[in-house]
Amino acid sequence: MDKENMTDIESLLQAAFPFWERLSLPQRDALCKGTVRTHYNKGKSVHGSGDKCTGVVILISGELRVYMLSEDGREITLYRLYGGDVCMLSASCVLDSITFDVHIDAEEDCDSLVINPAVFSGICNECIYAENFALKTAVERFSDVMWAMQQVLFMSFDKRLAIFLYDEMIKNGSDTVHMTQEQIAKYIGSAREVVSRMLKYFASERIVEVSRGGVRITDKKRLAELARGK
Amino acid sequence: MDKENMTDIESLLQAAFPFWERLSLPQRDALCKGTVRTHYNKGKSVHGSGDKCTGVVILISGELRVYMLSEDGREITLYRLYGGDVCMLSASCVLDSITFDVHIDAEEDCDSLVINPAVFSGICNECIYAENFALKTAVERFSDVMWAMQQVLFMSFDKRLAIFLYDEMIKNGSDTVHMTQEQIAKYIGSAREVVSRMLKYFASERIVEVSRGGVRITDKKRLAELARGK
Repeated sequence: MDKENMTDIESLLQAAFPFWERLSLPQRDALCKGTVRTHYNKGKSVHGSGDKCTGVVILISGELRVYMLSEDGREITLYRLYGGDVCMLSASCVLDSITFDVHIDAEEDCDSLVINPAVFSGICNECIYAENFALKTAVERFSDVMWAMQQVLFMSFDKRLAIFLYDEMIKNGSDTVHMTQEQIAKYIGSAREVVSRMLKYFASERIVEVSRGGVRITDKKRLAELARGK
Repeated sequence: MDKENMTDIESLLQAAFPFWERLSLPQRDALCKGTVRTHYNKGKSVHGSGDKCTGVVILISGELRVYMLSEDGREITLYRLYGGDVCMLSASCVLDSITFDVHIDAEEDCDSLVINPAVFSGICNECIYAENFALKTAVERFSDVMWAMQQVLFMSFDKRLAIFLYDEMIKNGSDTVHMTQEQIAKYIGSAREVVSRMLKYFASERIVEVSRGGVRITDKKRLAELARGK
């Protein structure tokens, strides 16, 4: 690899890892050498099709979808990652406490860094700050998964919000619902944080666009389907 | 608190926390003083009925059940904790990365230590090894939750029920599972009617006998096969 690329990787790693300053120069060097800049085309599987431990993925740009796959091919989306996010579950071998595996696909063209799991694991063993970062990242995803699980299992709130937005759209004859998230929460008997989180999810699914002025519906068909509980 | 109790608490904390040796004497002292020995009667709610952050629970003996609760009262069991386990999710305020909350009930009479969350949080801020332990414990539970999710989402119901009955049989060393159908439904995240129908089917296959007192397993071999998905 030429020197310019190496400097590039180093500055990207430094930006992604808050523990960078805690590493010795040889450790930084090992991390850089164990890192490969990788492009994934939209639709490509990044992790989970037989490859045991892909490595730590630092997403520079694009979108990754993390999901569970049943034996009969059913999928449940757990969460999505965007530029700047670090993916630890593609390197479950690094953390002993992770005993499950997930599937990860590129939802958009992705530019990323992939760090060799053995190299990253070595750094985690030597530097507790690195291990702490890895664990913290995993626990954040735990929160995302719990939220997804709540949606899938209890399947009520997304439907309720979709019905509300759809009804408002029809009632006002406008694509945009001019209400604050606080107001929407009040109308459907929920909390602002819950509405906010669900709108964020709707936005990630490109069903709505959220702005200061309110909520603009961008995919009426999908919203109607959600409202009917599909 | 008398001195004997204090020594008792100290040795229990030392046994539970691998980072104990990393703490200074004042830190150990603060932890001990922030810890209360607590007994929960069977059936009591330990966490989740309004109380925001109960604290870190070290279970000495007994059994805790950790579950999610939907707005309409459905429960999904996520995992169970036994003597020697440390419960971090009852102290979600300690870890910023945990943004969800769960319910925790005592399934048996429980003897435990409860550590004040502010005290534990302070220790985590001062000692990275403590924070590391807290995160690792949370990530282990993440693995449990993923497993539970897989069970609930993907597994056919007969298999789920068979696994539950088989596990209970082994755990209690008894052919009879002394539970109502309502309770079984609650444990495996289903409805009583569904459990009732499947038990009727199991009975028709002479795998179990259903009575008021519970479910007696009459064909262990067949139940084990079902649990393995055959």
